Amino acid sequence: MGRTSDAKAKILTAAGTLLEQRGYSALGVAEICKAAGVPKGSFYYFFESKETLALAVIDAHWAAERHDWERILHGDGDPLLRLRELLEATEEGQRAGQGSYGAVLGCMFGNLSLEMSNQADAIRLRLQEIFEAEVDMVDAVITEAREHGELTLTDTREAARSVVAQLEGQVLFAKLYNNPARLHSLWQSCLALLGAGDQTALSAAA
Amino acid sequence: MGRTSDAKAKILTAAGTLLEQRGYSALGVAEICKAAGVPKGSFYYFFESKETLALAVIDAHWAAERHDWERILHGDGDPLLRLRELLEATEEGQRAGQGSYGAVLGCMFGNLSLEMSNQADAIRLRLQEIFEAEVDMVDAVITEAREHGELTLTDTREAARSVVAQLEGQVLFAKLYNNPARLHSLWQSCLALLGAGDQTALSAAA
Repeated sequence: MGRTSDAKAKILTAAGTLLEQRGYSALGVAEICKAAGVPKGSFYYFFESKETLALAVIDAHWAAERHDWERILHGDGDPLLRLRELLEATEEGQRAGQGSYGAVLGCMFGNLSLEMSNQADAIRLRLQEIFEAEVDMVDAVITEAREHGELTLTDTREAARSVVAQLEGQVLFAKLYNNPARLHSLWQSCLALLGAGDQTALSAAA
Repeated sequence: MGRTSDAKAKILTAAGTLLEQRGYSALGVAEICKAAGVPKGSFYYFFESKETLALAVIDAHWAAERHDWERILHGDGDPLLRLRELLEATEEGQRAGQGSYGAVLGCMFGNLSLEMSNQADAIRLRLQEIFEAEVDMVDAVITEAREHGELTLTDTREAARSVVAQLEGQVLFAKLYNNPARLHSLWQSCLALLGAGDQTALSAAA
């Protein structure tokens, strides 16, 4: 099974890169197989369709991103500073993508939400679950900050949604202008959304 | 020229609808011509390529949207209430789209930013100009509100960018969840981004 598992991994890796660079509709199975260096027959041995592959790519991408988010947000220290670290890591991630591929690639989940929501129910539902999990994680850290007396807002869920929306909106601009520095103001916007825009200690070094 | 002009208008209308529903890459010229009810030869008489058509669709869509934005934002009355009216009109527009097509279509410019930024320089540049014009309009109304003593923020440009980013992020979620009501909290988020989240008079009826 060594070689076949290897082929599946190669397809997933190649498809992940291509999907981030060019979206879903612009890709063909033949192109993915060529980039992966595997025969087309291998593709259909592992994946029923391009949509099945896309779901597997989304899952793999989310497993990695979720791990990063948990590592940062479940850490020790001040909860709001952990949230800030997450936003800074997002900027760094987009900068690294630009370094590797010559262009800011944006958020795979945001990209596919706008491209695919109305065209593939399974992809829409998977992306909904992912964004719900992201909002859960941000909500938890905001709730913790409120318990520590750092925030006074009442609806932590709504605030978490607005923070994730701001993240997606600013990543859209970073991609459109091919400029990761567009994300530099994300922390200030986030503080404002949390009603903490005037907390000098938190915003000073931003 | 009556019939040829008619054919061009038919192609633009059909392509506009299809582009909003399915994005750029998923569309073929043959499908656009079929939806428009014109022969494929007509297409290449008016448009050099699918990309040329997409730019014409973007321009037509922006001409209409810019007209709406100017009508609302250049109106009389309190500047922040005009901004609020714009956000409410956005929610209404997405609701109307859902009524017509069965699904929230999102913002054509946001959709194409994430799908096409890295694939077509001409489209990327056109979309940059459009978002810059949107930020200009929001900046002007924020500046006016500051001159009226309603806001105290210093960087109106940055605030305008964060408001447009919030709009795009929340529209992404409205599309992903096929739920225009996701946009209902937009005004509260906007007030928070403008450092005016505690102004009861402005937020009360939101």
